[in-house]
Amino acid sequence: MYDLVIKNGTVVTAVSTTQTDVAIRGEKIAAIGEGLVGKREIDATGKLVVPGGVDIHVHLEMPIGNFTSADNFFTGTQAAAMGGTTAVIDFVEAKPDQRLLDALAARQALADQRVVVDYGLHMTLGPTDMGKLSQVAEVAAAGCASFKLYMAYGLRLHDGHLLRSLEAIAQAGALPVVHAENWDVISALVAGNLQNGRFQPRWHPRSRPAPLEGEAAGRVIDIASYVGSPLHIFHVSCGDTVARIAAARAQGLPVTGETCPQYLLLTDELYDRPGVLGALPVCAPPLRGAADQARLWQALGRDELQLVSTDHCPFTSEEKATGLADFSKIPGGVPSIESRMATMYAFGVRRGHFSLNRWVDICATTPARLLGFSHKGHIGVGYDADVVIFDEKRPFSLSTTTLHEHVDWTPYEGLTGEGWPVVTLSRGEVIVEDGVFVGSAGRGRFVQRRR
Amino acid sequence: MYDLVIKNGTVVTAVSTTQTDVAIRGEKIAAIGEGLVGKREIDATGKLVVPGGVDIHVHLEMPIGNFTSADNFFTGTQAAAMGGTTAVIDFVEAKPDQRLLDALAARQALADQRVVVDYGLHMTLGPTDMGKLSQVAEVAAAGCASFKLYMAYGLRLHDGHLLRSLEAIAQAGALPVVHAENWDVISALVAGNLQNGRFQPRWHPRSRPAPLEGEAAGRVIDIASYVGSPLHIFHVSCGDTVARIAAARAQGLPVTGETCPQYLLLTDELYDRPGVLGALPVCAPPLRGAADQARLWQALGRDELQLVSTDHCPFTSEEKATGLADFSKIPGGVPSIESRMATMYAFGVRRGHFSLNRWVDICATTPARLLGFSHKGHIGVGYDADVVIFDEKRPFSLSTTTLHEHVDWTPYEGLTGEGWPVVTLSRGEVIVEDGVFVGSAGRGRFVQRRR
Amino acid sequence: MYDLVIKNGTVVTAVSTTQTDVAIRGEKIAAIGEGLVGKREIDATGKLVVPGGVDIHVHLEMPIGNFTSADNFFTGTQAAAMGGTTAVIDFVEAKPDQRLLDALAARQALADQRVVVDYGLHMTLGPTDMGKLSQVAEVAAAGCASFKLYMAYGLRLHDGHLLRSLEAIAQAGALPVVHAENWDVISALVAGNLQNGRFQPRWHPRSRPAPLEGEAAGRVIDIASYVGSPLHIFHVSCGDTVARIAAARAQGLPVTGETCPQYLLLTDELYDRPGVLGALPVCAPPLRGAADQARLWQALGRDELQLVSTDHCPFTSEEKATGLADFSKIPGGVPSIESRMATMYAFGVRRGHFSLNRWVDICATTPARLLGFSHKGHIGVGYDADVVIFDEKRPFSLSTTTLHEHVDWTPYEGLTGEGWPVVTLSRGEVIVEDGVFVGSAGRGRFVQRRR
Amino acid sequence: MYDLVIKNGTVVTAVSTTQTDVAIRGEKIAAIGEGLVGKREIDATGKLVVPGGVDIHVHLEMPIGNFTSADNFFTGTQAAAMGGTTAVIDFVEAKPDQRLLDALAARQALADQRVVVDYGLHMTLGPTDMGKLSQVAEVAAAGCASFKLYMAYGLRLHDGHLLRSLEAIAQAGALPVVHAENWDVISALVAGNLQNGRFQPRWHPRSRPAPLEGEAAGRVIDIASYVGSPLHIFHVSCGDTVARIAAARAQGLPVTGETCPQYLLLTDELYDRPGVLGALPVCAPPLRGAADQARLWQALGRDELQLVSTDHCPFTSEEKATGLADFSKIPGGVPSIESRMATMYAFGVRRGHFSLNRWVDICATTPARLLGFSHKGHIGVGYDADVVIFDEKRPFSLSTTTLHEHVDWTPYEGLTGEGWPVVTLSRGEVIVEDGVFVGSAGRGRFVQRRR
Repeated sequence: MYDLVIKNGTVVTAVSTTQTDVAIRGEKIAAIGEGLVGKREIDATGKLVVPGGVDIHVHLEMPIGNFTSADNFFTGTQAAAMGGTTAVIDFVEAKPDQRLLDALAARQALADQRVVVDYGLHMTLGPTDMGKLSQVAEVAAAGCASFKLYMAYGLRLHDGHLLRSLEAIAQAGALPVVHAENWDVISALVAGNLQNGRFQPRWHPRSRPAPLEGEAAGRVIDIASYVGSPLHIFHVSCGDTVARIAAARAQGLPVTGETCPQYLLLTDELYDRPGVLGALPVCAPPLRGAADQARLWQALGRDELQLVSTDHCPFTSEEKATGLADFSKIPGGVPSIESRMATMYAFGVRRGHFSLNRWVDICATTPARLLGFSHKGHIGVGYDADVVIFDEKRPFSLSTTTLHEHVDWTPYEGLTGEGWPVVTLSRGEVIVEDGVFVGSAGRGRFVQRRR
Repeated sequence: MYDLVIKNGTVVTAVSTTQTDVAIRGEKIAAIGEGLVGKREIDATGKLVVPGGVDIHVHLEMPIGNFTSADNFFTGTQAAAMGGTTAVIDFVEAKPDQRLLDALAARQALADQRVVVDYGLHMTLGPTDMGKLSQVAEVAAAGCASFKLYMAYGLRLHDGHLLRSLEAIAQAGALPVVHAENWDVISALVAGNLQNGRFQPRWHPRSRPAPLEGEAAGRVIDIASYVGSPLHIFHVSCGDTVARIAAARAQGLPVTGETCPQYLLLTDELYDRPGVLGALPVCAPPLRGAADQARLWQALGRDELQLVSTDHCPFTSEEKATGLADFSKIPGGVPSIESRMATMYAFGVRRGHFSLNRWVDICATTPARLLGFSHKGHIGVGYDADVVIFDEKRPFSLSTTTLHEHVDWTPYEGLTGEGWPVVTLSRGEVIVEDGVFVGSAGRGRFVQRRR
Repeated sequence: MYDLVIKNGTVVTAVSTTQTDVAIRGEKIAAIGEGLVGKREIDATGKLVVPGGVDIHVHLEMPIGNFTSADNFFTGTQAAAMGGTTAVIDFVEAKPDQRLLDALAARQALADQRVVVDYGLHMTLGPTDMGKLSQVAEVAAAGCASFKLYMAYGLRLHDGHLLRSLEAIAQAGALPVVHAENWDVISALVAGNLQNGRFQPRWHPRSRPAPLEGEAAGRVIDIASYVGSPLHIFHVSCGDTVARIAAARAQGLPVTGETCPQYLLLTDELYDRPGVLGALPVCAPPLRGAADQARLWQALGRDELQLVSTDHCPFTSEEKATGLADFSKIPGGVPSIESRMATMYAFGVRRGHFSLNRWVDICATTPARLLGFSHKGHIGVGYDADVVIFDEKRPFSLSTTTLHEHVDWTPYEGLTGEGWPVVTLSRGEVIVEDGVFVGSAGRGRFVQRRR
Repeated sequence: MYDLVIKNGTVVTAVSTTQTDVAIRGEKIAAIGEGLVGKREIDATGKLVVPGGVDIHVHLEMPIGNFTSADNFFTGTQAAAMGGTTAVIDFVEAKPDQRLLDALAARQALADQRVVVDYGLHMTLGPTDMGKLSQVAEVAAAGCASFKLYMAYGLRLHDGHLLRSLEAIAQAGALPVVHAENWDVISALVAGNLQNGRFQPRWHPRSRPAPLEGEAAGRVIDIASYVGSPLHIFHVSCGDTVARIAAARAQGLPVTGETCPQYLLLTDELYDRPGVLGALPVCAPPLRGAADQARLWQALGRDELQLVSTDHCPFTSEEKATGLADFSKIPGGVPSIESRMATMYAFGVRRGHFSLNRWVDICATTPARLLGFSHKGHIGVGYDADVVIFDEKRPFSLSTTTLHEHVDWTPYEGLTGEGWPVVTLSRGEVIVEDGVFVGSAGRGRFVQRRR
């Protein structure tokens, strides 16, 4: 007899759709089959049984500039769990004089107390870490098998640093994940706009042109190709970047790309709204127009992009408003961690952009495999029992009153659709049941990821 | 208690690799999990447990010109089973005055008596069938969901007929599968070579240029795109054709392609061998050079080609020899039905062209899904228990003495490697056990395929 | 002292623009320079002095089906001269049992009596000429250095015949010029439309899809590339065909393409007009939509297409009306021979699609060089004194009352613009002076073209 | 009667080849024609008469690091004239606190005393000039219509500076000319090699990878495309860069590229030679391998590259030797100014890479037109009488003893071929006659170039 059996659901994986039972013993999926018997049984008749979502790009209680992102490891992972996501990857940045492993340990210690679901960390390599590249291998060996490289902001690495970093990461068998924008061009455009009295949020997208996002992605691909490194491009916002990734993949290069719900659901017209409303959706890369949006949906359907993450990074409207007199000072980021699984179902699957299996693939299976969550992202025997029962008919209306993200606004306010998780299991434990959170802070664990 | 449990094998699917048990009840996979108990149990410790191979392109006891292909439905499917293939698709051609459904019934009646594994049939639409296109829907409804279109030979359809056929097939929701070569060019080159006294087999590849195979593939893709039809290109032999398929897919067109072991393992130097040796490997498209071969392996790794079938179509060396004085009279085709799974493992996986999961994908999962074998090609609950236990260490040496194909030669004579099936199950029944065939003629069934 | 000097004009060639004099002695340009003195002098101050236009694609008194094109060699070349064109290439077709040289001689004899300007002939190779390919070399040697191959109509060559023809033409050092459409597809679509009661002219373009024009062009390019032949694609009407030509050229293949004024100035909405109005502009390939038109202008500017010819082939409105009950019976062709130079100036140069030098290049220099008019198409010493004085400010209004084409309609009725020839010289002789024709029938000569 | 007539030569322009006379009055070509009479006449029977070469990329007495390039304005332009080049473009760099116009005046003053042929200057915009972009328009108005931007060395502009510079140059209607390499990557590779004790010249090419040259070219193209600026890429050394330029041109962008004789005639094996021999050919980008070399010849033939300049920048072997202990200190540059016309004829035309007309085009006509020498680069009435009589049969053997470049080595030592100028005229004055220099220092003039 198993500990828990999910009965009669429609089990959806990246390659199959089957009506059957899923049995759990301890923290693992122990069997899939007909007529399995458990101490506890949950009826999933008429519902989907899918792997818990894997969101490889979140920023929780992350200090950025003068502010700290509004969701902490508890509220953020709770919101994730409510939305059917059972694994996230956050970030760690070392101080200039700090060993990378020490920074990792410190960030783990902070997270471990609070996380509700399992998590991993990307180690950020900034300019002050260039003397620490010999530590990359031990960081990877510690289960931190991916490294974040910025081509923008203060953390920006110039191309020589990118080269050296990519070499070290490739040698360690780890994965570089990159924020690709052309920071020198952006800085020049921002300066030019401010000098000309263009202070409003609408100048934010006009300072970060899509063709130069594509250029930056193409550049780091060229460097990675020269070095012989794999590469993952974060938060693709436009067709220019899709084109570079697709061209690299057509040549057989190990390059992947992700986009995020905000780029798929919102457009840059939002920046024209008055007052703080225009400032709220500031993020980087910025939201783009309808043509780019359509191209992103298409790219997910054609495997030109491989996955959807959130880049969840909320700041309060008060914090956003501090940049109203200078758009370049608006803290960047939007919250999406809770609604990703549902919106990708409602607007991806239902609108015909991709299949149910592809939905599971881009939201769970591929992100888990690519980032080294070797036992997550799939409904299979021996995998962690991170399982979501998803009700395709359950309506949702996104709003700060319905969402659990710890921030006073959402860019999806009023967005409605059908399809929402009703039960979330993390390693065999029910942590959300019929929309009520029943898990606890600190039950999540740091996962040693390997590639 | 299950009927049969395969214990402790490494279960490999297109997306996962797990050590666990697979339980069968009746004809279906009933459960996958740890510690399953069966009336009969087979120990698979240290071996792979994979879905039975799906070979969507075979010609058994098929009358072609003056000859009939040498394997009948018994010997051919027995050889398939010995090599780990548990589903095949053969062909049916209607006589000029015959209803398509009648031809289908007659071919089924013939096959049903003899087949050892499950099978489907492609309905060939030739020039004399152009008045029968209104029957396409009922043929598809009868479970014959794919239609073969020839751009070569006497069955060749000109482009107007292709257009009309593709329209009818698309409207029926079925899949066109196409032999793409430029027959007019080939006919001109053959005639020219014969007129110039070039009779030997080496003039066979010189009469069927790779660029014009690519041209023909591109042409039928253009027509299918105009019509709005999906399309599957058979037996891709060269980079020119890969390029056309890849370009179509990059535009989001529903185009797929396959290649065959002979194009991956042999080259056109074989045609230079003296006497009948040069005639044996005559097939169409012909074998190509090393550069094309390398491109095909690459294409499988990059998903530019989606699957591997055999185009198994053996003729005896005596029959082959009838064309020694005129290469264009050599009956075309080579035997590969038995060794496909093993050679794709030994030369595809072991040589690093693709992963173990990709091997399962291109040999079983994708062919099953694409051609409408909805319950085959995957190790999953509810799927047919077509299962193969594959011993990665078992050596093989291909030869007419070791193979069970009913023909007195093999193009792979002397080819050695490691990895061969040790047990084959078809719908829950063990039909090959430790290299001994224990199945029976007629136990296989016609599968109604739907897309 | 020269025979004739054109004084003070702005001499425009494909590479230079200079204000100077052009001196003529006998039939040749004898000098270009300042202060030249002639027995006769024509003041060209403020006007352009350009090479006479070279129209490599005209059909004069050409029997096609039940009709003969309405302009004979006199009226057609007179209209050409009035519009500033001083060399044309027409066609010759041999009867099934006629030697090619005999057909050439007969067609020359007919033309020689009537032509006003110099001319060449393309030899058409149809299905009944396939036994005559050994005569290709002597035809080329007779100065007929280009051969017309049809992929459509009764003269259509299948791909094997194309291959053989291209081989023979390449071996003779001549140029194949091709009508590229997919005739089997067109025939199927025409038959389908007629069967469904779709008889009106608007079904003409709907039976000749642009993607299949591109396909046909791509196919003959593939065959020519295999054979090692140069290739010129006639009357490109759409972006699909431009793409094939541009791709071939990017690979360094000796492929060129032309378009015609009708595809640059008219769109397929004309076929929707009632009665004979919808039938008049029927030509093949058909007129296309605005997007294709824009792509053609762009292609001329980028050298993706190399020249503009007319495919001048007028039929009277009475003849056109015979196909009103069956669009496939409408004799195809439109008149453009007279207005080409002017419309390409007014709508090409003035609208900014290309420069004055490029205008000369695509209307005279490149067509002359490509087709072997070694002494035409350029204002240079030693070249034939085929010279046009072009007044950029002279207004034109196209109409049957202003044009000299021998046909009772024009597709450009009412089209106005600025820029028209005022003087036309052919081999040193003034044949048009201030809009009055002062030449004579039979003064033109057959030009032995060599490549 | 003209001042000077060149009799009976074969006059070759970019579009025509004619046997005729060329007459000169004063400094200009006054007439082209038969039987022209001059006070002085030069017989050119059996020889080519071509426009004097235009070399848009030379560095004469240019201070670079600790050295100054070895040819001064006299020796360099004398060597140019000896080799048939009659116009060059050199560079001017302003000091940090110097107005651009002042720097231009000073450089002109220096050159004017010494130049033998006409010249122009590119204004270099370095990091210390970013505050002077408002002066760009007046510099262009002063006839300095092109601006050099470095992506490498101390003068390197980062991408934001590139953006601002390209905006200013485009607005002034001038042309940016760019040294495209990825300096950050190069700096990292150089540092890495030096740290690892790799000091020899062979580490020079290994520190400047071809794919990153392509990347840099692609990047500045992307920025220019965003800004709406034309762009000329200097000294293309590899197929990666050709691909970027060709892709841009295929999209209709106003991008051009040049290569240089050293990349067409030499390969990177030279860096493996012992001692100073390995150091001599150090230049940037570096020499590449045979595949890249073949691609460059192909690109010139296909108009993927538009012209050939020299980047003439000689340093003595003593100066070169100062970097033997550290390849990064070797002063970069090779001499090619004298042999360009001859080697492009002998190895370009004679080897079949391009035609005689194309030779004139890439060596004279296109460089003149692109860079705004409106009266140079063509044999046409009204053009400057910069004319070269070129003897196709005259043998040459390149060596410091035969060349007049003021440097003690040549990378082409021992290279032999056929075809060398015998007479060079600059603005109507014979300055080289039968291999003897008869001109004088200071007779050349600064040309106000406009686009």
